[in-house]
Amino acid sequence: MTAIRVALLAGDDLRVGGPELIDQWRAGGGARLWVDITQPDAATLEPLLEERFGFHELASEDSLSATTLPKYDPFPQYDFFIFRAVDVDLHEHGSQTYKLAAFLGHDFLFTVHVETMHPIDDVASRLPSDRRLLANGPDFLLYAIVDGMVDAHFPLLDRMEECVDALQDAIFLDATPGHLDELLHLKRDANVLRRQSLPQRELLNQISRGDAQFVQKNHLIYYRDVYDHMFRISETIDVLRDTLSGTMEAYLSVVANRTNEIMRVLTVFSAIMLPLSLIAGIYGMNFDHIPELHWLLGYPAALALMAAIAAVMLFFFWKKGWIFQGETTFRHEEEK
Amino acid sequence: MTAIRVALLAGDDLRVGGPELIDQWRAGGGARLWVDITQPDAATLEPLLEERFGFHELASEDSLSATTLPKYDPFPQYDFFIFRAVDVDLHEHGSQTYKLAAFLGHDFLFTVHVETMHPIDDVASRLPSDRRLLANGPDFLLYAIVDGMVDAHFPLLDRMEECVDALQDAIFLDATPGHLDELLHLKRDANVLRRQSLPQRELLNQISRGDAQFVQKNHLIYYRDVYDHMFRISETIDVLRDTLSGTMEAYLSVVANRTNEIMRVLTVFSAIMLPLSLIAGIYGMNFDHIPELHWLLGYPAALALMAAIAAVMLFFFWKKGWIFQGETTFRHEEEK
Amino acid sequence: MTAIRVALLAGDDLRVGGPELIDQWRAGGGARLWVDITQPDAATLEPLLEERFGFHELASEDSLSATTLPKYDPFPQYDFFIFRAVDVDLHEHGSQTYKLAAFLGHDFLFTVHVETMHPIDDVASRLPSDRRLLANGPDFLLYAIVDGMVDAHFPLLDRMEECVDALQDAIFLDATPGHLDELLHLKRDANVLRRQSLPQRELLNQISRGDAQFVQKNHLIYYRDVYDHMFRISETIDVLRDTLSGTMEAYLSVVANRTNEIMRVLTVFSAIMLPLSLIAGIYGMNFDHIPELHWLLGYPAALALMAAIAAVMLFFFWKKGWIFQGETTFRHEEEK
Amino acid sequence: MTAIRVALLAGDDLRVGGPELIDQWRAGGGARLWVDITQPDAATLEPLLEERFGFHELASEDSLSATTLPKYDPFPQYDFFIFRAVDVDLHEHGSQTYKLAAFLGHDFLFTVHVETMHPIDDVASRLPSDRRLLANGPDFLLYAIVDGMVDAHFPLLDRMEECVDALQDAIFLDATPGHLDELLHLKRDANVLRRQSLPQRELLNQISRGDAQFVQKNHLIYYRDVYDHMFRISETIDVLRDTLSGTMEAYLSVVANRTNEIMRVLTVFSAIMLPLSLIAGIYGMNFDHIPELHWLLGYPAALALMAAIAAVMLFFFWKKGWIFQGETTFRHEEEK
Amino acid sequence: MTAIRVALLAGDDLRVGGPELIDQWRAGGGARLWVDITQPDAATLEPLLEERFGFHELASEDSLSATTLPKYDPFPQYDFFIFRAVDVDLHEHGSQTYKLAAFLGHDFLFTVHVETMHPIDDVASRLPSDRRLLANGPDFLLYAIVDGMVDAHFPLLDRMEECVDALQDAIFLDATPGHLDELLHLKRDANVLRRQSLPQRELLNQISRGDAQFVQKNHLIYYRDVYDHMFRISETIDVLRDTLSGTMEAYLSVVANRTNEIMRVLTVFSAIMLPLSLIAGIYGMNFDHIPELHWLLGYPAALALMAAIAAVMLFFFWKKGWIFQGETTFRHEEEK
Repeated sequence: MTAIRVALLAGDDLRVGGPELIDQWRAGGGARLWVDITQPDAATLEPLLEERFGFHELASEDSLSATTLPKYDPFPQYDFFIFRAVDVDLHEHGSQTYKLAAFLGHDFLFTVHVETMHPIDDVASRLPSDRRLLANGPDFLLYAIVDGMVDAHFPLLDRMEECVDALQDAIFLDATPGHLDELLHLKRDANVLRRQSLPQRELLNQISRGDAQFVQKNHLIYYRDVYDHMFRISETIDVLRDTLSGTMEAYLSVVANRTNEIMRVLTVFSAIMLPLSLIAGIYGMNFDHIPELHWLLGYPAALALMAAIAAVMLFFFWKKGWIFQGETTFRHEEEK
Repeated sequence: MTAIRVALLAGDDLRVGGPELIDQWRAGGGARLWVDITQPDAATLEPLLEERFGFHELASEDSLSATTLPKYDPFPQYDFFIFRAVDVDLHEHGSQTYKLAAFLGHDFLFTVHVETMHPIDDVASRLPSDRRLLANGPDFLLYAIVDGMVDAHFPLLDRMEECVDALQDAIFLDATPGHLDELLHLKRDANVLRRQSLPQRELLNQISRGDAQFVQKNHLIYYRDVYDHMFRISETIDVLRDTLSGTMEAYLSVVANRTNEIMRVLTVFSAIMLPLSLIAGIYGMNFDHIPELHWLLGYPAALALMAAIAAVMLFFFWKKGWIFQGETTFRHEEEK
Repeated sequence: MTAIRVALLAGDDLRVGGPELIDQWRAGGGARLWVDITQPDAATLEPLLEERFGFHELASEDSLSATTLPKYDPFPQYDFFIFRAVDVDLHEHGSQTYKLAAFLGHDFLFTVHVETMHPIDDVASRLPSDRRLLANGPDFLLYAIVDGMVDAHFPLLDRMEECVDALQDAIFLDATPGHLDELLHLKRDANVLRRQSLPQRELLNQISRGDAQFVQKNHLIYYRDVYDHMFRISETIDVLRDTLSGTMEAYLSVVANRTNEIMRVLTVFSAIMLPLSLIAGIYGMNFDHIPELHWLLGYPAALALMAAIAAVMLFFFWKKGWIFQGETTFRHEEEK
Repeated sequence: MTAIRVALLAGDDLRVGGPELIDQWRAGGGARLWVDITQPDAATLEPLLEERFGFHELASEDSLSATTLPKYDPFPQYDFFIFRAVDVDLHEHGSQTYKLAAFLGHDFLFTVHVETMHPIDDVASRLPSDRRLLANGPDFLLYAIVDGMVDAHFPLLDRMEECVDALQDAIFLDATPGHLDELLHLKRDANVLRRQSLPQRELLNQISRGDAQFVQKNHLIYYRDVYDHMFRISETIDVLRDTLSGTMEAYLSVVANRTNEIMRVLTVFSAIMLPLSLIAGIYGMNFDHIPELHWLLGYPAALALMAAIAAVMLFFFWKKGWIFQGETTFRHEEEK
Repeated sequence: MTAIRVALLAGDDLRVGGPELIDQWRAGGGARLWVDITQPDAATLEPLLEERFGFHELASEDSLSATTLPKYDPFPQYDFFIFRAVDVDLHEHGSQTYKLAAFLGHDFLFTVHVETMHPIDDVASRLPSDRRLLANGPDFLLYAIVDGMVDAHFPLLDRMEECVDALQDAIFLDATPGHLDELLHLKRDANVLRRQSLPQRELLNQISRGDAQFVQKNHLIYYRDVYDHMFRISETIDVLRDTLSGTMEAYLSVVANRTNEIMRVLTVFSAIMLPLSLIAGIYGMNFDHIPELHWLLGYPAALALMAAIAAVMLFFFWKKGWIFQGETTFRHEEEK
């Protein structure tokens, strides 16, 4: 159900309440208005936004649509923005995106969003004690909200980096298909984050360059600060993606290495056992005249021959570095 | 066979019919004309476009050619556009592209296309009830058509994403060459989509910046909206391509992993069986003097020795993690 | 040997002949001159171009050099262009490049090329019947030639695409080193095409933007059309390159899959045969006291034991999906 | 604990000391002030920077935050810069980043940094003997510091290049998982370096183009020089990253090659031993009527047959190039 | 030891000699001076460049430093350039880079370089007979030198392309680690070339656009020509790098293919020999009652059974295409 919160600052007098406060405000009357709309439905929104305030139908539609990317559209009486934030659940690999539509005028700010957003609740609860937020103008209020939205990505990125590091270590110990699946999911999460953050970074760059009409020049530095954070976020995402690509390549190499080790074991075993079996087979033949069979020490001699062949083989493989060095192959694990 | 539909709006009077209506229209006379031509052939088109309306021969040729990419050419009396839409049949992996050529003047719009296009039929059928479409000017009518063409890509992209997800799951269960083939086809489909969408995105960007002469300034915001949709489409295609690349890499890793498992089975079997066979071979030798053969418990002792060797081997491979942990290797499958 | 063809249009009078016609032409005299030089040698060219017409020595050198890339150099009295076309022999994988140097002035056009070029012969043979080619100005004549050069790439690209499709199908059936070699050659051919087409596309973009001094404004639309074709060519080449990269990756996966299948056969064989051989070996031992050997049904019992073990093994591998499902591994082939 | 060093140059008189010197300085009084603050804490910094000198709160915050990327913010009375340097410990693969915040005015420079930085200590110790550093203006002093910071990357890059070369050689001898781990770590180190150096290069480009207000025009050439060094650094990092990618691919190929060699040994052994064992098995059969068994030379003939088969096999594999050419396979090692 | 060559052209009088000629020249006096300094040391250079001619200390330092990349710095009285050339020894894989620092004024040119450079010696030896080189102005002299430096890359690139082609052929015959090593070295050489050529190309672009103050407008076309050559060089390097990447991928595929073939041999051998051995083993068992052993034709029957099984197996593998088609696997080699 649509929930509407309104804050009105006239001089030093801050009133907080529901939609009824909107009627106390008049454009250009010096008072500053913030209308925050959660879970909007078209039936409530259209009369308010399009008829009452004359916002453009396309902007009004965009503020309802779930998929619009971050953008800025200037209209004569107001600026229209879409901002986005992403939260990824690293266990379920579901990503939740939050969209904020904002109509920013000279003395009013409308924020429209489907989900409850912490940064907005935060600013709303700080407003009574810190009325500078609204007194500085609605563009400063918007800055405070967007700043909160952007900074919420940092802990997420930290968790993703830990996740990738843990995965990389796990792959070196034992590269299972489960790890591969995890890798692909992390890659997709990183892609989702990147696709959302690039247009938002560009949008913040635009604002901080002074392109938005209703952001005051002396507040540009604040948006520039948010832009710098957004830039850092997208840089971190790129490092993550690079690392994930490297991990994918490493995965294949780890598996190839393991196949290698398995083959080595098989080859050493076969190469030692097959000649010995051949000797046993030869002295198991039923020819009438096999002189060795009648020697007193024939049996121990045959065993000795087998031992000698095994020793030669072992020496050969040891020289090749295939055995008794198996530890170096996994030096990595043991160093840990 | 060439089919021509004409709509003429003079004041409040909307007439819909065939080519005969064209004669009722005069440039600059205040009336607005829409001519929609399906399955054009050169013989019909040239007299109409080049001789009657004086459109440039190159534009007229482009509106017949099947392969021209999206573009914008300004002419003194009109703007010439090529738009494209793609539909991919994910089962047959055939892609169908639709091309729309549009001549947009101050008070007329010519749309030329080979195939029947739903977005145009749609607009044509809405026209009698919503004459705002033509009353706002032919550029608004064109917007309505292009908007429909662009938005038709969204369900296609949704189907492709589902397809890729299903393929990824299938590969983790069993990576067959059929999956590889499917992967390459999806990649090609994504490439086709991308190649078509990039120039169209650029074209819509141009229009929404106000480059087209006969698009009115107050309608730019509508084209900007279409551009935003097109931008989202090309972003989604890029995510798709990224995911497909990751899937290709994963495919190889899955196959490598499976080879690994097969090798492990072979090695464990060989390494256990070969030594036992050697012992059987030794006591099958025909030497006169093999004392063990005459022991009362020689046979059970030999069997016990075999069992002991097998046990040692199994322990060795269990320590290496090659057996009795086979389930972890396919943990992924079972988690599903 | 240098061959020189000259066409001179004075008013309605078109004369076609050899170098003697040049003397009948005077700059600024209203007549239009086209000089086409095949297989130029420095000894003939320098006096004509540098001394007689005062073309710059660097332009004259460039028109002789075989390797110069497409480019545009403006000089006070003329524009100098280099255009290129490529033809690839897909069987021999040799690529032939054609270079056209053009000096374009207000009323003259010099075309210099080493090889016989069909598009030029074409234009030359159309000239007597369609003197509009020269009457529209030498820039229009140049357009007609370049248009022919550019369009000659389309059939080549069609053949390359068919070639890649056939190769991809062949690889799925049987990935041989010969296919790999073919792949690398196609990749190189695509690279050669790309390197030639990018600067030419840029050059045509420049001309169609109106950068060339002696191309008339009302002919820009024609060059723009050639540019659009060139753009489509370079897009197609990029798709080709993408497809070839995907095919390379697929090749490795197909080979890995096949190794997989081979290993599976080996493992199944070994895992069934080795235990049976062990049993045969045990009952081939020469111990004095092996009670089973004296049982009346010892031999059939041993055979039954072997059959039972084989059955268990087959069941085990069938459960793992390694046998009796071999067809699904090549489902792809059979679907075709 | 916050440490504050101050240098004050009034005419020819250079005074070096603690925060008490700040009071002797007055803006615009002709004297030049350098304040260097190590290990800043908010409690000390805010009164000094924000209240005393009126620096903007965002700049003051940025100079405390550890993560801000290189940037330039102009303020009316001063320029604010963030510079960064990185040091990578190639053994521990921990990277240490140093951040320098600088407030540059017409006659003052504030440098704020958490860690002790050699380039700053260096400049501080050179100051008494070379007062040109401050006499040329605080922008020249800043240049001297940044120049030291940037040049400190060269020895690091040299060490990284050596490290990569050594790793590549090691992989050719023996591709262990430890090498793979090392590779991934080096890749990550190179990524960290790159992410830090790109914005810094851009920042230095900005300054050297003359964008900073308080850098004098005749000092731009010095910043341009630092920019050139930074450019070289980022080029070297790109080469490093390229080489690391190539090494990753080579790793997989080396492992594949080794598997190849192992398989060859196994195959040769099996293919020789299995037929010989079969012959031994045949003459070990207990049929009543096996004539060969009773031949006088039956046993030597059987041995000769075995030898002949082995010889044929060896010849076959030698022809295939699988044996007695093993050295060429490792030609690389021996050439070293 | 520093070597200084001087050429002085006053009117028609060309004097060539040592540093003593410098004193005969006066700026703006109409005479043209070329000073060429080989193996500079700081002690000789600084007095000459900085004190005598007032060149900036940073430019003077750059002309001594070995690592500076190509660049252009304008100073009020002169232009300062760094050019570079590379020579790669494809056998030793050592690359030698040549650096040329040039100070270009209205009537003087200083060239400073550490190594002996053929293009400079060339120009110096042509100077007495072709004084146009200096008479056209020092910027034309510089053009002649740089043209020689750039063109020296063409034979190198030809050798590299041959080298890559030969390597590709060799890999198809026998993919050894030595080839891999060669590949990585070629890749590194190509990278070194690329890193040097990109900034130089950019530098030549700058000059040919007319950015350098002391290059005369009518000489821009010459620098444009050098730029075109440099452009072609960097294009060729990119093709080389592409080809090398493709070769790396092909290497892995060739090795995988070979492993495949080896596995096939092993599998065919094992699958035929193991069943035969089992039969021999069965009839080698010592059961009292094995009726077949007492058949008159038991032995030939057993051999016949073995032959039958072998035939079935061979037929099975021939159907699978694993044997008697080995030639197609290496069709490539034989086609050559």
